[in-house]
Amino acid sequence: MSKKDVSPRPEARLPKGLQDTSAQEIRTTEAMLGTVRGVFETYGFEPLDTPAIEYADALGKFLPDQDRPNEGVFSFKDDDEQWLSLRYDLTAPLARYVAENYQTLPKPFRRYQVGPVWRNEKPGPGRFRQFVQFDADTVGAASIAADAELCMLAADTLEALGVPRGQYVVKVNNRKVLDGVLEAIGLGGEQNTGKRLTVLRAIDKLDRLGWDGCRQLLGKGRKDESGDFTKGAELKDQQIESLGQFVEWKALELFHGSGGLQYNRDLTTPNVELVDAIRKVFAESALVNEGCDELAEIGRLVDRAGYAERVRIDTSVVRGLEYYTGPVFEADFTVPITDERGQQIRLGSVVSGGRYDGLVERFTGEKVPATGVSVGVSRLLFGLQLLGKYKGDVAQGPVVVLVFDKDRMADYQKMAQDLRAAGIRAELYLGSSGMKAQMKYADRRGSPCVVIQGGDEKGRGEVQIKDLRLGATLTSIEDREEYLKKQAEAQFAVPEADLVKAVKSVLDRHKA
Amino acid sequence: MSKKDVSPRPEARLPKGLQDTSAQEIRTTEAMLGTVRGVFETYGFEPLDTPAIEYADALGKFLPDQDRPNEGVFSFKDDDEQWLSLRYDLTAPLARYVAENYQTLPKPFRRYQVGPVWRNEKPGPGRFRQFVQFDADTVGAASIAADAELCMLAADTLEALGVPRGQYVVKVNNRKVLDGVLEAIGLGGEQNTGKRLTVLRAIDKLDRLGWDGCRQLLGKGRKDESGDFTKGAELKDQQIESLGQFVEWKALELFHGSGGLQYNRDLTTPNVELVDAIRKVFAESALVNEGCDELAEIGRLVDRAGYAERVRIDTSVVRGLEYYTGPVFEADFTVPITDERGQQIRLGSVVSGGRYDGLVERFTGEKVPATGVSVGVSRLLFGLQLLGKYKGDVAQGPVVVLVFDKDRMADYQKMAQDLRAAGIRAELYLGSSGMKAQMKYADRRGSPCVVIQGGDEKGRGEVQIKDLRLGATLTSIEDREEYLKKQAEAQFAVPEADLVKAVKSVLDRHKA
Repeated sequence: MSKKDVSPRPEARLPKGLQDTSAQEIRTTEAMLGTVRGVFETYGFEPLDTPAIEYADALGKFLPDQDRPNEGVFSFKDDDEQWLSLRYDLTAPLARYVAENYQTLPKPFRRYQVGPVWRNEKPGPGRFRQFVQFDADTVGAASIAADAELCMLAADTLEALGVPRGQYVVKVNNRKVLDGVLEAIGLGGEQNTGKRLTVLRAIDKLDRLGWDGCRQLLGKGRKDESGDFTKGAELKDQQIESLGQFVEWKALELFHGSGGLQYNRDLTTPNVELVDAIRKVFAESALVNEGCDELAEIGRLVDRAGYAERVRIDTSVVRGLEYYTGPVFEADFTVPITDERGQQIRLGSVVSGGRYDGLVERFTGEKVPATGVSVGVSRLLFGLQLLGKYKGDVAQGPVVVLVFDKDRMADYQKMAQDLRAAGIRAELYLGSSGMKAQMKYADRRGSPCVVIQGGDEKGRGEVQIKDLRLGATLTSIEDREEYLKKQAEAQFAVPEADLVKAVKSVLDRHKA
Repeated sequence: MSKKDVSPRPEARLPKGLQDTSAQEIRTTEAMLGTVRGVFETYGFEPLDTPAIEYADALGKFLPDQDRPNEGVFSFKDDDEQWLSLRYDLTAPLARYVAENYQTLPKPFRRYQVGPVWRNEKPGPGRFRQFVQFDADTVGAASIAADAELCMLAADTLEALGVPRGQYVVKVNNRKVLDGVLEAIGLGGEQNTGKRLTVLRAIDKLDRLGWDGCRQLLGKGRKDESGDFTKGAELKDQQIESLGQFVEWKALELFHGSGGLQYNRDLTTPNVELVDAIRKVFAESALVNEGCDELAEIGRLVDRAGYAERVRIDTSVVRGLEYYTGPVFEADFTVPITDERGQQIRLGSVVSGGRYDGLVERFTGEKVPATGVSVGVSRLLFGLQLLGKYKGDVAQGPVVVLVFDKDRMADYQKMAQDLRAAGIRAELYLGSSGMKAQMKYADRRGSPCVVIQGGDEKGRGEVQIKDLRLGATLTSIEDREEYLKKQAEAQFAVPEADLVKAVKSVLDRHKA
């Protein structure tokens, strides 16, 4: 194509990693969010909204993929040359909000928030640059009961969404335990802060990459399918093996099945005993002991509240975000999930969270303990749908008033308005095509029936109603008498004044 | 403050023109959006969502304030150096969506969309850089019935939201009429495209600035209260006077009252007669005639459907967006609106829209007629609240389980979980303060009651329930017997096993 041929017209396309959402998907998501909202409200959380745009320095940089350009965040300069960013999660804006309004908030402050977040990341299958999160956080509560509660909230949310008990697990670990273990293998001290983060992020990918991929990331590095190379943590072989033993800890009920790491439901060790097992091995580490105290407390709380089999201590949990300081947790499905082609897929965690005692302190200099949980809405819905839930029927379409005679638009529009005034979903056909195309349009819209008034009907002061659902069943009727009877029911004329009543009677026929 | 004192901590603040939204405001807005959604669905529109970010060239530049830096839009470069923008309305993304998916859409395509949009504008009182729009559009319908329908939709929406008939008006004009008048005063032709737009935007501000301010913008220019100067259209005095006569057209039921331009409800000229009056004066202009044909058609349609007094032809309506090509309309309150201090305020239009036949053509080169309407959600809610609607009570707070003995958190948390499992909004107090502060916290949260179990109660296997609402009324009781009776009702002990039942009985007391 020569340069002259290049059209000056913009191309109608979306930037990579962004997507439109269809009517059905919106209705399904809304239903799901309504259920999540219900559970969160039952736990006493109140809604809060913050804007999409914040000062870049207020959000800070806590994303897993710090090595990407722009550090994973969409940023731009304001008129006064200050950097603004689109929020990459709902936790950083909450920290800003709490720091800004601390004096006037009830303490502890419990809020939920639902909304899109943006990541300037490499998009991939099921990996988008805009996605919806649904968070609940408790700010100003040092008590480990706040973390335990969020784990139970995660379990209750999944069950409210229709995931049966036993088909999911909420796994809990503690960053202090992880840090203690890293210290024990010689990665303690400030000089190793960066390296510890790299190690944690490598372990965080255990579920997705398996131990082999994880081992590469702990060592020299790893080349992914697309050929991109991620530099590794460059640990020694001995250090890598120690970590491997820890994260695959036998007592922690994990085993390698054919589909990768799987959760072993046969083991029913009480949570508190699992913690004791960890503590024994790393008895000399103060950090491990502190973390184990917190894990034991969570164990006690969930066991007592009857969640022992739903919320489990699990050393393989890390979470990628840098700001976590104590308990971290995530919920995963434990049933195999297969896609439309029957292939088993790795969904990853659908709910996750943890404690971040330093986020508000960033602003105020004062310690404000906080913990939160986040529902990955799109991923969870995707998983639920693969499990056969939230398939969502298409909503019933509107009654369509057809346009037989273009000069009589005002009369037809009046009919549509009369139907609407009676609370019936209705529309006037607004295109320019003939009757056949109009019928097709009504079919396409999922209309229960159409309204027609040609010259003859007008002369008799009548309108015709055509029941499209009943009409569609006619061809399967073999008995002639039955056919004629149903045909008469499927298409009939009524006096103009009875339009609303007649349409209502057709709608009543098709009520489930 | 010396430089040394400057803290390295980020400041907890929002960028100008952005705001957080409180729980009560969220609940009120959700209720309002639900009502709007209901009306839009009744008209047969289906939901669609598009992402916040689009290619800058796909959105185009159609904003009123083109003279601002960045042209009113937040923009930034993608990794591949292409410009991205945050959407500034929901219409431009719809045009992109339709152009991208035209083959597979039902035609006409009717969709509604609700969501935030962003404007990189100078913020002011009630003027934000992020705000929510709620749009409905019909794409692929050349029929003027599509425009008439949206005017009726605007009226139905306002009435569904509680605005009584007669307290609002939907005003309709036509860009072709405006263009024809401009042509008639010597502003026709391509060489005047820019000047025509400046003129239209000046007239669009008539309602806010009055004719004097508008006249300045049509002439040399205008300095606003803040001292900022806006360059004018530099029309001759003669041209300005002609325009003045047109926009203040007597037959159009407008008169100058004490509060600026007001709508005269005493005049009940049928819409079609108003159009004839315009047509007579500008009989020689083909454009005016074409525009008047469309206005007359809208007049016929709304008059026939019974909306004659709600939807009015009005030559002062312009709308600021560049992409409109035919009918333009807006809905305003006609009752005086006063703020909390009793001062009358100019709210501006709360619903607006128009026909934009060229927006999809930008991409495809093929004409795809389209028309749409947009509800200014925040402004409308603000107006409704000043009219005493959507005041919204605070939602009932959660039952709070108090922490008497920190070593018994697991028991208390179990109580909260038991209440939640019964569908009762409940929370465990998660702070570290004593009983008095805990009671204050429960008050602050709007709790109906608290649950207490100290050592004595535990010994007896009981829990105490304290009804905070009933308790608050005790001090006003003078009769001693009555006082003791109510006191016993307000605070009582039940066996542990009856906790849920007892709390339910308290909640039942306070059901409206």
